[in-house]
Amino acid sequence: MVDGKKLKKQIIKIFKNYGLNEKHATIASSAIINAELVGAHTHGLSRLKMYCDRISKRLINPKPKIKIKKISKSISHIDADNSIGFVAADIAIKTAIQNAKKTGIGMVAVKNSGHYGLSGYYAEQAVKKNLITMIYTNAPPAVAPHGALKSLFGTNPICFGTPTGSKVPFILDTSISMINRGKIRVAAINNKKIPEGVALDKFGRPTTNAKNALEGVQLPISGFRGSGLAWMIDILSGVLTGGNHAGKVKDPFDDFSGPQNIGHLFITFKTNLFVKNYNTRIKDNIKRIKRLPKIKGVKEIMYPGQNKYRRFKMNSKKKIKISKIIKKDFEILKH
Amino acid sequence: MVDGKKLKKQIIKIFKNYGLNEKHATIASSAIINAELVGAHTHGLSRLKMYCDRISKRLINPKPKIKIKKISKSISHIDADNSIGFVAADIAIKTAIQNAKKTGIGMVAVKNSGHYGLSGYYAEQAVKKNLITMIYTNAPPAVAPHGALKSLFGTNPICFGTPTGSKVPFILDTSISMINRGKIRVAAINNKKIPEGVALDKFGRPTTNAKNALEGVQLPISGFRGSGLAWMIDILSGVLTGGNHAGKVKDPFDDFSGPQNIGHLFITFKTNLFVKNYNTRIKDNIKRIKRLPKIKGVKEIMYPGQNKYRRFKMNSKKKIKISKIIKKDFEILKH
Repeated sequence: MVDGKKLKKQIIKIFKNYGLNEKHATIASSAIINAELVGAHTHGLSRLKMYCDRISKRLINPKPKIKIKKISKSISHIDADNSIGFVAADIAIKTAIQNAKKTGIGMVAVKNSGHYGLSGYYAEQAVKKNLITMIYTNAPPAVAPHGALKSLFGTNPICFGTPTGSKVPFILDTSISMINRGKIRVAAINNKKIPEGVALDKFGRPTTNAKNALEGVQLPISGFRGSGLAWMIDILSGVLTGGNHAGKVKDPFDDFSGPQNIGHLFITFKTNLFVKNYNTRIKDNIKRIKRLPKIKGVKEIMYPGQNKYRRFKMNSKKKIKISKIIKKDFEILKH
Repeated sequence: MVDGKKLKKQIIKIFKNYGLNEKHATIASSAIINAELVGAHTHGLSRLKMYCDRISKRLINPKPKIKIKKISKSISHIDADNSIGFVAADIAIKTAIQNAKKTGIGMVAVKNSGHYGLSGYYAEQAVKKNLITMIYTNAPPAVAPHGALKSLFGTNPICFGTPTGSKVPFILDTSISMINRGKIRVAAINNKKIPEGVALDKFGRPTTNAKNALEGVQLPISGFRGSGLAWMIDILSGVLTGGNHAGKVKDPFDDFSGPQNIGHLFITFKTNLFVKNYNTRIKDNIKRIKRLPKIKGVKEIMYPGQNKYRRFKMNSKKKIKISKIIKKDFEILKH
């Protein structure tokens, strides 16, 4: 158990030792601590060593020359120069916020980026500035296209955020696979089984063995529909932006043959473009849905992001748990 | 079996008899014929009598004064004055196309609209103009929010279209329910069963009886994820636009207590904002995915819209089949 602030300082120090400047190290460290606090351990400390390994091999550029190209007052294009994904995404969402504040709508595409953690983390930034946001990113192959026997799509999240007129934002951040790849990875490390129906082994047979699933393919949600959504996200974040696509994004843990060149797309817009009373309207929307009769055992109908917010508040008061594996990582990284 | 062109003229005549002008009658008729040709019979002739009934009761306004308000060079807001949905959507996508052609990105919100048929039909218009498009609409209650025992979300489709560098566009047009409500309606009319796991009866029990399902709730794809996506679409197309939301969109078949006031959101943007060779890139994307090893029995990995295009081409050469029920509808509507 480690105090969150202390832990953040430790991570900043590690990233700085690996060549990141103070600002970039702080951005990356904040995102990792946030993932731990919202309970997304698969996107937190468990990735720290991977990031550092990639920096060591210069697959993540610790001193990137990030170029922001203005396409129009609303639209910008960022070449992240293989920066750590957190930094690229942080600049991108801030640019998208600025563009939307000026013109009503902002669109920012990013190429030559890497894994940036949770999309929801960037969505929150836009929502805090009273904007609606849609965020797309691709990822290394994990999910088989409908009809295929080989993984190609990433778990490609769809992320949507909106102000709610309350302090708890509506943040939908859902991968298009039946299960988060990180969860399978954690299950594999801890020798635990995964649910049925979420993955096939490398021979195309259903499996509940996490290690076999990592070697096989994950299944998309809802067959052809989920496959189509994953394909859409690959197009929006890869084909459109200049990033890698069609399965060419490298797995950050396993493939050190080159940078990832992930692409992201950030869309932001004002809530009051078409109605004056957006906050009242969405409050009413949420209230009506929460009032519906519930299935037995359900206490409250939750909107996306609500549980995560509660976990964040609760965990922020506590120390952060460090697993044995991560302790080992820290020992290696500190030296 | 009726010739498509003849049928279109018949429908135009019917709509004109109900008070629509030539242009609006033609737009509505074209959309209905298109739905038949792509095989989406639930969105075609089976709805003709419903539209006419609603016009008779002035819940659809046959002579709408549609207002297009310019918010910025990229953004427009349309008050459809309860026009038939086809007409509102046709104006909206054309406005979104114009805005994107001028500024790179277009966003058009619509309020006071009605059921507009297939989102993909409007997406095709944007794709033909070499634009990428995202289209959202809400719909009458059909799907229960995760944890609720009552329907509230519509089958709220997600629609995405992009040029492919070939004549067959990529059009993803997928409802967020396990099954299209129209299919349940058709099954109920024909006394056929529906698949397991797609709906609950009004007591919250799983059912394969189509009539019981229509009285009960449809289930969203993938539980909490699909529910979150449906909620997102209700916010984007209802809360944001000034349209009805939170279950207030009326069922066009069953509820004649007022106009639907459906909301839609159309987003369009250029393919070459960030890369010069978009068409080459997406061709390569599709080629790589089609080349993957296939599951036994799968001949070709299809991208969304490909099957629909094939059906359209095939059906365009043939006469259109008219069911007994629709023949009866025609007899009523002609007089």
